[in-house]
Amino acid sequence: MQESKGQGLPVLALDLGGTKIIAAIISNQGQVIAREYNLTLANEGPQAVINRMLSVIDCLLSSRGIDSSQLNSISIAAAGAIDFDKGLVTLSPNLPGWCDIPLRDIVQGKYGVNTFLINDASAAALGEHCFGAGKGVDNLILLTLGTGIGGGIIINGKLYYGSSGSAGEIGHMTIDVNGPRCSCGNIGCLEMLASGTAVAREAIRRIRRGERSSLTEIVGGKIESITAEKVGMAAQGGDPLALEVILKAANYLGVGMVNLVNIFNPEMIIVGGGMAKMGDLLLDPAKQVVRERAFQLLAQAVSIVPAQLGNDAGVLGAAVFAFQQVTD
Amino acid sequence: MQESKGQGLPVLALDLGGTKIIAAIISNQGQVIAREYNLTLANEGPQAVINRMLSVIDCLLSSRGIDSSQLNSISIAAAGAIDFDKGLVTLSPNLPGWCDIPLRDIVQGKYGVNTFLINDASAAALGEHCFGAGKGVDNLILLTLGTGIGGGIIINGKLYYGSSGSAGEIGHMTIDVNGPRCSCGNIGCLEMLASGTAVAREAIRRIRRGERSSLTEIVGGKIESITAEKVGMAAQGGDPLALEVILKAANYLGVGMVNLVNIFNPEMIIVGGGMAKMGDLLLDPAKQVVRERAFQLLAQAVSIVPAQLGNDAGVLGAAVFAFQQVTD
Repeated sequence: MQESKGQGLPVLALDLGGTKIIAAIISNQGQVIAREYNLTLANEGPQAVINRMLSVIDCLLSSRGIDSSQLNSISIAAAGAIDFDKGLVTLSPNLPGWCDIPLRDIVQGKYGVNTFLINDASAAALGEHCFGAGKGVDNLILLTLGTGIGGGIIINGKLYYGSSGSAGEIGHMTIDVNGPRCSCGNIGCLEMLASGTAVAREAIRRIRRGERSSLTEIVGGKIESITAEKVGMAAQGGDPLALEVILKAANYLGVGMVNLVNIFNPEMIIVGGGMAKMGDLLLDPAKQVVRERAFQLLAQAVSIVPAQLGNDAGVLGAAVFAFQQVTD
Repeated sequence: MQESKGQGLPVLALDLGGTKIIAAIISNQGQVIAREYNLTLANEGPQAVINRMLSVIDCLLSSRGIDSSQLNSISIAAAGAIDFDKGLVTLSPNLPGWCDIPLRDIVQGKYGVNTFLINDASAAALGEHCFGAGKGVDNLILLTLGTGIGGGIIINGKLYYGSSGSAGEIGHMTIDVNGPRCSCGNIGCLEMLASGTAVAREAIRRIRRGERSSLTEIVGGKIESITAEKVGMAAQGGDPLALEVILKAANYLGVGMVNLVNIFNPEMIIVGGGMAKMGDLLLDPAKQVVRERAFQLLAQAVSIVPAQLGNDAGVLGAAVFAFQQVTD
């Protein structure tokens, strides 16, 4: 990051995901000075989520005795399709009720600080490109596998965000034209088949129809509280149903990756998000599908690797984005 | 195109497709000075196709009394996955038997002229971007719908060719994970469902199982000689079976376009290749699918338009590519 107007001042970066909100103060050297978390509780709707977001920001500033005037800018990475010019979250399959919410102006209005809004997976891609697994890699794609599946695209060393700021909705690519309808309105989306939500849904479906699994004990009989994380734990413990459910999702993930490899011929695909914690259990079968089905030259050209920055990728990337906007 | 080394000298551009070979002499202003054609007859295998290609070049040069030393360069657009660094056609689903063919060096060796090799759809994208439907459009995707389905990607005004020169194999994106196996080794590829070959195959299949169609008379009872072009003719004449076959392919094409729109958020998708001659019969249902299923903001941001340069897109784009390489 280069020196700029607001030189030396940190960015307050916020990552608004389907499950949690992370806010951080980040120096212009990319160091996280302070962090604050809260749950998103997305089902409570936009206004409640926005209030919770603003209170996370307030907490973070007051805990460090920082006034908003001491910030270079605020940068928000949000899980949804962004209208970059207008600063809107236009739609978010993982934030129910969000439709054309002017999030940039709401935050800018409250704190009186220059505010940016980008997609959360785009931010994570930028974070991993600058500080993580994708350092020095010019053409890469980041997939965030969590509640949903997000994507961020780095082309020729720069974030690609398309003609209106919403490129990278990789989770909403149809891979099964006869598949289930997604909340985005499309059919057979990768997200419906390989996200954390899909993994939990499939485990619940199979257990409800009478199959046995250690998951039933793990959740104390409350089948509906099975999450992808718990399926991962059961699989690590050798539970056959959990292993099968993850293998199925991994195969779908591999199909999505084949599409990305054949379309982008990327140097690297980085896999982040909560599901990435499943590690080789998820990535090995997906890589196998890529080896078997993608164009050989392209399959050889790509490395498929786990993300390195964990939960910080989004806030770090959002900060990079803000510093780049100010210096550009 | 800028002035350069070899200033004023034209490029000999050649488009090697699954069906035909087109060669042209093109000025540094993008004017086609002379053209020569031949059939590819791809089933005869690589050596026969290369010989036919070289003889098209010889014909073109001798008919115009041009010596190869009077060329800026030779630029070949080939239907297949290209290893740009090595100048190889590594694989081509529509040129049977082509595997790691050093086409660049074969041509360079024979004519002693600097030679370039790129993918044919990438070339067409560059052609349409510089001289056709995509003039002034910075983020666009071109689809060539012919024997196969090719793709070319322009990002930030430049051809994007990926980490090893093979980006844009859009026809080999899985849209039906339970679909038929493609000759590329992948499953349920867009090309298997929406290419000219797919349209002909589906019409033949339905007529063979006893359905009635004016196509049977159009081909004089030789069902196996039905082509997508003939299906298009029958559909224009109101033949119900032909109309249904095209509608089915158009719906699949729409699904592929939804994926491109959600991933790239492009300003424009240009549709070229032989199938594009079907016009609105093909494009209207595909656009409808995009309107219904892609993210709304992204669907509104994209224009889906027919290509303007017809058969010349590939040779014009190959020439642009060569001039850009020399001036870079």
